Amino acid sequence: MIEPVMKRGFASDNNSGVHPAVMNEILRVNSGHVVGYGDDPFTEMAKAMIREELGSQAEIYFVFTGTAANVLGLAGITKSWNSVITAFTAHIEGDECGAPEKFTGCKVLTVDTPDGKLRPELLKRHMHGIDFEHHSQPAVISVSQASEMGTIYTVEEIRVLSDYAHANNMLLHMDGARLANAAVALGLPFRAFTTDAGVDLLSFGGTKNSMMYGEAVCFLRPGLTQGFKFLRKQGMQLASKMRFISAQYIAYLTDGLWRECAMHSNKMARELEKRLSGIKGVTITQKVQSNGVFLIMPHDVAERLRKEYFFYPWNEQLSEYRLMTSWDTTSDDVEQFAERLNIMLSEK
Amino acid sequence: MIEPVMKRGFASDNNSGVHPAVMNEILRVNSGHVVGYGDDPFTEMAKAMIREELGSQAEIYFVFTGTAANVLGLAGITKSWNSVITAFTAHIEGDECGAPEKFTGCKVLTVDTPDGKLRPELLKRHMHGIDFEHHSQPAVISVSQASEMGTIYTVEEIRVLSDYAHANNMLLHMDGARLANAAVALGLPFRAFTTDAGVDLLSFGGTKNSMMYGEAVCFLRPGLTQGFKFLRKQGMQLASKMRFISAQYIAYLTDGLWRECAMHSNKMARELEKRLSGIKGVTITQKVQSNGVFLIMPHDVAERLRKEYFFYPWNEQLSEYRLMTSWDTTSDDVEQFAERLNIMLSEK
Amino acid sequence: MIEPVMKRGFASDNNSGVHPAVMNEILRVNSGHVVGYGDDPFTEMAKAMIREELGSQAEIYFVFTGTAANVLGLAGITKSWNSVITAFTAHIEGDECGAPEKFTGCKVLTVDTPDGKLRPELLKRHMHGIDFEHHSQPAVISVSQASEMGTIYTVEEIRVLSDYAHANNMLLHMDGARLANAAVALGLPFRAFTTDAGVDLLSFGGTKNSMMYGEAVCFLRPGLTQGFKFLRKQGMQLASKMRFISAQYIAYLTDGLWRECAMHSNKMARELEKRLSGIKGVTITQKVQSNGVFLIMPHDVAERLRKEYFFYPWNEQLSEYRLMTSWDTTSDDVEQFAERLNIMLSEK
Amino acid sequence: MIEPVMKRGFASDNNSGVHPAVMNEILRVNSGHVVGYGDDPFTEMAKAMIREELGSQAEIYFVFTGTAANVLGLAGITKSWNSVITAFTAHIEGDECGAPEKFTGCKVLTVDTPDGKLRPELLKRHMHGIDFEHHSQPAVISVSQASEMGTIYTVEEIRVLSDYAHANNMLLHMDGARLANAAVALGLPFRAFTTDAGVDLLSFGGTKNSMMYGEAVCFLRPGLTQGFKFLRKQGMQLASKMRFISAQYIAYLTDGLWRECAMHSNKMARELEKRLSGIKGVTITQKVQSNGVFLIMPHDVAERLRKEYFFYPWNEQLSEYRLMTSWDTTSDDVEQFAERLNIMLSEK
Repeated sequence: MIEPVMKRGFASDNNSGVHPAVMNEILRVNSGHVVGYGDDPFTEMAKAMIREELGSQAEIYFVFTGTAANVLGLAGITKSWNSVITAFTAHIEGDECGAPEKFTGCKVLTVDTPDGKLRPELLKRHMHGIDFEHHSQPAVISVSQASEMGTIYTVEEIRVLSDYAHANNMLLHMDGARLANAAVALGLPFRAFTTDAGVDLLSFGGTKNSMMYGEAVCFLRPGLTQGFKFLRKQGMQLASKMRFISAQYIAYLTDGLWRECAMHSNKMARELEKRLSGIKGVTITQKVQSNGVFLIMPHDVAERLRKEYFFYPWNEQLSEYRLMTSWDTTSDDVEQFAERLNIMLSEK
Repeated sequence: MIEPVMKRGFASDNNSGVHPAVMNEILRVNSGHVVGYGDDPFTEMAKAMIREELGSQAEIYFVFTGTAANVLGLAGITKSWNSVITAFTAHIEGDECGAPEKFTGCKVLTVDTPDGKLRPELLKRHMHGIDFEHHSQPAVISVSQASEMGTIYTVEEIRVLSDYAHANNMLLHMDGARLANAAVALGLPFRAFTTDAGVDLLSFGGTKNSMMYGEAVCFLRPGLTQGFKFLRKQGMQLASKMRFISAQYIAYLTDGLWRECAMHSNKMARELEKRLSGIKGVTITQKVQSNGVFLIMPHDVAERLRKEYFFYPWNEQLSEYRLMTSWDTTSDDVEQFAERLNIMLSEK
Repeated sequence: MIEPVMKRGFASDNNSGVHPAVMNEILRVNSGHVVGYGDDPFTEMAKAMIREELGSQAEIYFVFTGTAANVLGLAGITKSWNSVITAFTAHIEGDECGAPEKFTGCKVLTVDTPDGKLRPELLKRHMHGIDFEHHSQPAVISVSQASEMGTIYTVEEIRVLSDYAHANNMLLHMDGARLANAAVALGLPFRAFTTDAGVDLLSFGGTKNSMMYGEAVCFLRPGLTQGFKFLRKQGMQLASKMRFISAQYIAYLTDGLWRECAMHSNKMARELEKRLSGIKGVTITQKVQSNGVFLIMPHDVAERLRKEYFFYPWNEQLSEYRLMTSWDTTSDDVEQFAERLNIMLSEK
Repeated sequence: MIEPVMKRGFASDNNSGVHPAVMNEILRVNSGHVVGYGDDPFTEMAKAMIREELGSQAEIYFVFTGTAANVLGLAGITKSWNSVITAFTAHIEGDECGAPEKFTGCKVLTVDTPDGKLRPELLKRHMHGIDFEHHSQPAVISVSQASEMGTIYTVEEIRVLSDYAHANNMLLHMDGARLANAAVALGLPFRAFTTDAGVDLLSFGGTKNSMMYGEAVCFLRPGLTQGFKFLRKQGMQLASKMRFISAQYIAYLTDGLWRECAMHSNKMARELEKRLSGIKGVTITQKVQSNGVFLIMPHDVAERLRKEYFFYPWNEQLSEYRLMTSWDTTSDDVEQFAERLNIMLSEK
């Protein structure tokens, strides 16, 4: 019998398992027959609970992965001759193996950012050739909240981008794979920095924050979902036993589970930052605003450490690495990791 | 609090829940951190167990849905200018909302069949224009085992098709969403009617037979998987917490769970057939070889019955309906359904 | 120096060359600079001349090939989760190497027909699963006029199909690669059996009837062209020196050139039919209504004849062959071909 | 009757017409029947003449447009999960409305360049995540020769890129829409800076340099063309009357027509540069190495001038404009344009 590996690394917030409360709800709904493909009472309930968070106008569609939520959502609001503008560090650019291009036919245009966050000035290089048929037509601005660098957009920063998008006949998409971490960081309800800040389309994830699988494509502006149910099926993302995704969202949105988990992982990231920033030879490279810590350390030390802990290089040329904390990271995990790094650096 | 609906209908074998043994294994693997995206020991173990069934040469990739297993598998063995030949009743033709065409670019060509099963003679209408650039080039024959009509291919029938495929430089794909029902019906191990019968690519499903989600794309012939891991990711089917799919396959393949569940649902189908065939006004239209029963009954009665039980029309012009039994269908379910139908027909 | 082959076969109406009047107009517009990509006065004029034929509401876009006209036009009026229903013999099904599926993502669904012509009763097998997300949604009925079998729809037959389409929230597409041959056969202006008969989208070809290259995608119903200019460019069909396509349409629509050419090729087909039907061992299999003659003859004779004349088998199992006449076919060509066939048959 | 506009602007090298020698060859091949779709003696001859230039191993496929040549060629050497790296100014990035993404499914990744030319150092930002399934796999480096900025790669610069590509299991594509202008600028035969410099795939254009339509996809390395004929058909780029494209290439490659035309347009660009650089208020921004002149001038003046002459802004933020000369540009055209600009600037 294989036993689970017990060591908690910092590779990704999805190396962790599933929160007991989520698991319990999965068990609870596993009784008897319900209609498949989402026409069941649990799915109705889960969608209602999400609308409670995002506004009653929101239209919710569950899919399996964060990549799917981004790609299908974008497909729903674009034509193949459109472009989507995002940060070079965005998940849709660097971590989805071309899924957006393949499924939507659109171009993904990028801008370099110091911190993973877009600003209107940065977008301007792509805002030309409007109505010129030789050129893909910009249709969507896509932000990640929290960003892939662990940074957080303020409400005002999002509002500036949504205003810019709407003034240019574009829509604003938010990749919310770590939406809970952002909400905790901002100390705000989801709605305040999504619907109320002018976001049109939201990928609302939970897998990185204690769920098992499943993400929600949330259309926050009315009138965008025509035919989307067909697109989801054609995109191979219609779950037959959908109640088990819905159950997870029910648990996630009950008694603030999402907040508790995100608050913890954000706290662990700050502890990690604090502990590492005191180590000579380590440079923290980004503000730690959510559950990611970016640092530069000597390449050889990092590679030695990666034999004991699983984590990813971020920028190999800079010898920059990414550490992600999770809902189940412990202070001991932080302490032991920092201690090992400290020892390795001192041995150098 | 919503309570699960307790009434078991015959709409689909995926209206049922998850077997306790599957659930237990999901719970068991939910401990500590493991590497995401499939590089974990549970996934290794699950793949080894599947290879145990299909042969050591088999290459296994987990995805989320049966549609995805079919579409990505086919994408892996075709070019966009190929065609896939299948029965008009096949899932890839009628129940995937064009996902094969959208993702692969291929044509899906169909033939009419009396029983959902292909035969070489039926394929010939599409076997022309070879090497002629105006015409999509036939590359795959796709069968469903069990078929969508509940019928079963014998080993010999599959062998004839795989020989025909290979003689024409094509490959044979098997949609095995109900593979366990077929194995039970044939009284054979999986391998006997897949690998050993010349099948090249298999979609090996379990969701319809007691699992929660997840399917396995199984390349049974060496040399077909080049780049498939990228295709899976680009196809939005790479699970981050893959251990929870793997756990289900581990349970499914332990102590013959798949057999127990399929044997039961097949048995319930035979009971249903026996009970219904005795009712005046009902005509059974297909051999009941697995867990589906197809019948013609008066349209008005069927529609009345559908208000109480959820099930689908199969051919509206013929007033033909489909009833699917599940691993948790009971003899009481069968009896009560038959009784209600009997009463409705007699009231007519 | 290579000299052109002088022998005129019956392989295809595009084995012929270009009519001198078309060539003259090409020469005439070849003077000085004009704006590229269609913003030139010749293109304006050509589009106006086509609107003269089809109605002032028509929106015209030139592309390079008939396949492109069909595919891009269909892409303009569908979503990827739609289906297009057509005859099994249709060009979009059998002669475009999957271009419709690849570019639109749609399914192409077919029905068997005795004569290449659709009728509402034939379509019904595909008219189900409406609004059911598992199933591609029928959006277009596509007819070929003249059909690939050389047969012609009457105005009334087209009207019945357009009414059926519109009653089912679908649109009617006409592949008019041989539209002129149909007009001549019907003795009607183009408009009578397109716009006025309820056709929504027309591929208006000329290459098979004396032009060099270039086809026109004609949207006959207002409101269908949103974004189409981008789709044409993305579909690689925007001609830089578009004036040379436009010139051809100007010539084609001046002084009834299209009619003269089509009348001639239709007449040659009738001559061919008359001459061949008198030969023992030959069976004409389709009504000769335009410029195609379909016949069954002994396989060995046909293959011998194909060494001298280039023409295509149509249905190899039936030993059925297709002969196409062209604007430049002569009575001598017909006579010599028939004579050779006669001799070969008598030698048998 | 519409008369052609006689004024020659500097908008694009494809606003010009067709060279008489090209037109004569088109006329010459327009006699009698030949087999369609490329199986004709003219196409054989044209391909042989191109192989004469590029090497006997070259495989040639004609298509209609430069966009199609780029897109189909790239599709032939990539999988959908690959990426193509190019300059931000490249035609495939900015001027093809997303056709590469839509047809290939690949990502197009860009780097900023001062002069439109790639160098290995610039590519490194995209050369990571190799074999990592979350990331599109770099497969092609794409250069434009001449570049879209009118600059020219030396043989050595191309060799460095092809070596880099091959060392990284990638291929080198060259967009040769203005290949003749580059050859003239370098004073070298085509082969010296394509096949012999390690280029694997070439889009060999002529439309911008005196032809009417048609481009050649040239695979310069053996083993890359498997299935390409199907891809061309499915890409809607198979010409039925292909002899008319072939005729143009025959003329183009006879008696150095390509050289004569390109030499002239390059010369006119140098004259334009010389004349404009003497005008106060004008700054030439790129080396004039082929037939493009890039300049900064006051926005209001440029807009006034654009009312008389058709030409495009290149970078609106910099008030930078692009002037292209053509095979039929005259010294008078240059003089008059410069004079008008001079007057407008002095009136300012």
